[in-house]
Amino acid sequence: MPEPKNARQIQSPRGTRDLYPAEAARRRWLLDRWREVSVRHGFEEVDGPTFEESELYAVKSGEGILGELFQAFSGKSPDEVEQVKQTGRAPFALRPEFTPTLARMYAAKAAGLPKPCKWFMAGPFFRAERPQRGRLREFLQWNADVIGLDVPQEKWNAEDAESRAEVAEAKARMDAEVIACCVESLRVMGLDPQAVQIRINSRESMRSILDRLFVSGPAQERAFSVIDRYRKIDEREFEREMIELGADPNAIDALRSLLDSPTQIEGELDAFLVPARYGELGNALIGMKFEPSETALFRTLGEYGITDWCHWDCSIVRGLAYYTGTVFEVIAEGERAVAGGGRYDNLIELFGGPPTPAVGFAMGDVVLSLLLQDKGLMPSDDELMGLVGQHPEVFVLSNGTPEADAALRPLVARLRRGAEPSELKTQDSRLKTPLHVRHSYKATKNVGKLLKEAAQSHARFAVIIEDGSSCSVKDLRENQQWEGRVELADIHTRLCEALRA
Amino acid sequence: MPEPKNARQIQSPRGTRDLYPAEAARRRWLLDRWREVSVRHGFEEVDGPTFEESELYAVKSGEGILGELFQAFSGKSPDEVEQVKQTGRAPFALRPEFTPTLARMYAAKAAGLPKPCKWFMAGPFFRAERPQRGRLREFLQWNADVIGLDVPQEKWNAEDAESRAEVAEAKARMDAEVIACCVESLRVMGLDPQAVQIRINSRESMRSILDRLFVSGPAQERAFSVIDRYRKIDEREFEREMIELGADPNAIDALRSLLDSPTQIEGELDAFLVPARYGELGNALIGMKFEPSETALFRTLGEYGITDWCHWDCSIVRGLAYYTGTVFEVIAEGERAVAGGGRYDNLIELFGGPPTPAVGFAMGDVVLSLLLQDKGLMPSDDELMGLVGQHPEVFVLSNGTPEADAALRPLVARLRRGAEPSELKTQDSRLKTPLHVRHSYKATKNVGKLLKEAAQSHARFAVIIEDGSSCSVKDLRENQQWEGRVELADIHTRLCEALRA
Repeated sequence: MPEPKNARQIQSPRGTRDLYPAEAARRRWLLDRWREVSVRHGFEEVDGPTFEESELYAVKSGEGILGELFQAFSGKSPDEVEQVKQTGRAPFALRPEFTPTLARMYAAKAAGLPKPCKWFMAGPFFRAERPQRGRLREFLQWNADVIGLDVPQEKWNAEDAESRAEVAEAKARMDAEVIACCVESLRVMGLDPQAVQIRINSRESMRSILDRLFVSGPAQERAFSVIDRYRKIDEREFEREMIELGADPNAIDALRSLLDSPTQIEGELDAFLVPARYGELGNALIGMKFEPSETALFRTLGEYGITDWCHWDCSIVRGLAYYTGTVFEVIAEGERAVAGGGRYDNLIELFGGPPTPAVGFAMGDVVLSLLLQDKGLMPSDDELMGLVGQHPEVFVLSNGTPEADAALRPLVARLRRGAEPSELKTQDSRLKTPLHVRHSYKATKNVGKLLKEAAQSHARFAVIIEDGSSCSVKDLRENQQWEGRVELADIHTRLCEALRA
Repeated sequence: MPEPKNARQIQSPRGTRDLYPAEAARRRWLLDRWREVSVRHGFEEVDGPTFEESELYAVKSGEGILGELFQAFSGKSPDEVEQVKQTGRAPFALRPEFTPTLARMYAAKAAGLPKPCKWFMAGPFFRAERPQRGRLREFLQWNADVIGLDVPQEKWNAEDAESRAEVAEAKARMDAEVIACCVESLRVMGLDPQAVQIRINSRESMRSILDRLFVSGPAQERAFSVIDRYRKIDEREFEREMIELGADPNAIDALRSLLDSPTQIEGELDAFLVPARYGELGNALIGMKFEPSETALFRTLGEYGITDWCHWDCSIVRGLAYYTGTVFEVIAEGERAVAGGGRYDNLIELFGGPPTPAVGFAMGDVVLSLLLQDKGLMPSDDELMGLVGQHPEVFVLSNGTPEADAALRPLVARLRRGAEPSELKTQDSRLKTPLHVRHSYKATKNVGKLLKEAAQSHARFAVIIEDGSSCSVKDLRENQQWEGRVELADIHTRLCEALRA
């Protein structure tokens, strides 16, 4: 065990953050944007525990995942301490993502939940990665998911052609809903289709492509993993790995051209995934059509008016094994991934629920914040403090006389409290709302200095108590003194009127 | 290692919570109340990591504390896994309280921070306790603290009588600020002085009392621990333990009378802690006066108009060793502690900062929620969903014609999006704000059924698309149809006007 540290040496754990007021305001602003966008798109907030049983993650990703996580145990439980000493593995893990929790929660109450069920959450997540630019060990993540479909449940897994077509349309609608919500979050933060692109693909289309390349069966899953690394590995390695998986060596160039050619999804997207004009792609792929679920998705994205953000990009397959259909990533300049998601139709069942198609995405705060800063879209610290309500509405000061000094705290308390319950019956309660009030902590009685402090606090109004019963008011935003004095008994109502105007 | 579980058996860890929409709304409502009260009292939000180095907690509370915590380690770090296997102790711990993080953060930037510095935070905390009514292993806690004083820093620890008097007054002001903020949070949730009491004491006064009882030096710290358990242990054990610590056996009855006699703090509280009228208390204590810092606190609480909530109760000493002056608890019927706090003037220095007086409190969500439920003050699930903004402003439906069906998604998207950037220059942007919009996922084309669904969603307005270019509107709150039809091009503005009225 390492030597005990001197208190002065203890810092926040590497890869975590101390949020002083400006940083906390930035987090609050981001969380509020995510939440506001989710709510107005009809998603309802949920959340789960910060830590889960380790096995919850192993169910989805295998035991190996535990080596990527922060593991946890109760120091009070002799059994758990003993387990950890013997195995080096703990019974709990800090959540690295939300989907397993969501699947567990949905599975536990599936019968009583609406169909579809639209859930979002935003909160802290944890990964045992080496911290670097864009990656922290504790970070925020926003999740929005649509679980189930808007067609009767008995059709969700029916095999007849009519049901399958209906379900493909329904999946496209749900996919488009989560993509539209994701796009809107980018838009409200000031981003545009030049700054970020939604790169969309479908694992179903990719399976058709791989079939044509003679990569089939379980090799397709491994091919997804190779394609997911396409831009990170060199050409020869890509070629070698694909051929090992059975790919026709003559078609690798065709595949590579396709992977290199994201195409904007326009209102009337060509039905051909690989149209004849891509003559150089080789016969293996020419003339392939998009899957019906994919053309339906493109059409619905058109109805939502967001095709200018959206590109078809078959290099997007997502690393995780559980995606089944649509997959997408939000990519900014420099190929930075801001968000990612897709359809995971088998996962709810894996967690003990009924077979339930589902789609969702996750967006982290770290890459997004770097992007907003790079683009000059992150509000300044001062602006952020104002945006999250931390600029006072009123700054109260005394003119320095003993009567005014004595009136200060009672007035501050009264303005902060708003109407007393006894006043609520007879008064317009909106004229006695609680106000955000501050006062100076400095010893000075110099009114000029105190007014300067009021202005620095970004208060809207300065109230100068002139004696035990009256005050004068300065509107600091308009830099204007109110005419005459206001009785202390009336000041609350007058301020509320002015703030509501 | 236990057998791997079937996915169906995995539940949330014991003592943690799954928050489905109604529970998540309850959490949001509570967090919003805490936050809103903190902000209007001039506190600024901060936060730290969810886990800290274990030693951070050992600095304050000794190594023994680790047995009460959830401990954590990186599954990716061979060193950390090895440490855990060898020692059964992990390098990190899930935070059980905020004060050590706050002290560490303040100490790291003390020179550049305002004096006093008013910080709040609310978030998840963790304890390895056995779950029971009122106690969970993951819970929410609100913290509000005032660090530093409103007198010049060189006086904070000066020894001359004048500075000491000035500092005592300043501490009383800061103590009263955090107590006023705490009281206001109880008031906004509908509680009143009949339902909860702020029980206040001072460790300084208790030291004077213990001096008179011949309990002195280090025995006083142990006496605090005995008094903290006064209501949990039996009379004889209390007497035995106090006498062991040196207490005059003849004065135990006097002490017990004092511990049993909380007194409301009135505007003009008697300066005598033990006035002559408590004749039965024995000579040892009669005539004792309150410490100047305590009378100053009572006076300031009067200025804030909250003495009706406040009681002097010398049985409140708080278990934790680090409190130095004022201590207080919020006690509801059945002696349930809703919140607790006090002055901890030595802690910032212990964490490597300059000597800095500080005071704060923490309120958890579990006991508070039970109390609000018992009192009928917790809003219903439906009310909560409305209070946190999860009732839609608009529910859009089609009259079932193909043109209306085709217009639905584009209209929903447009209303959710608000004004386009191009519109913002020429339009009053308040008339094109983004709206919270929902629509049906049911297959029915029966307008009556769809209107019923709209009402069940608690939407304010139902918009019925009548053809490709117009709609009718029903105000569901007033149960009134708007006259005539509205062009789809105008509906956004009309809805915004109506919602703002």
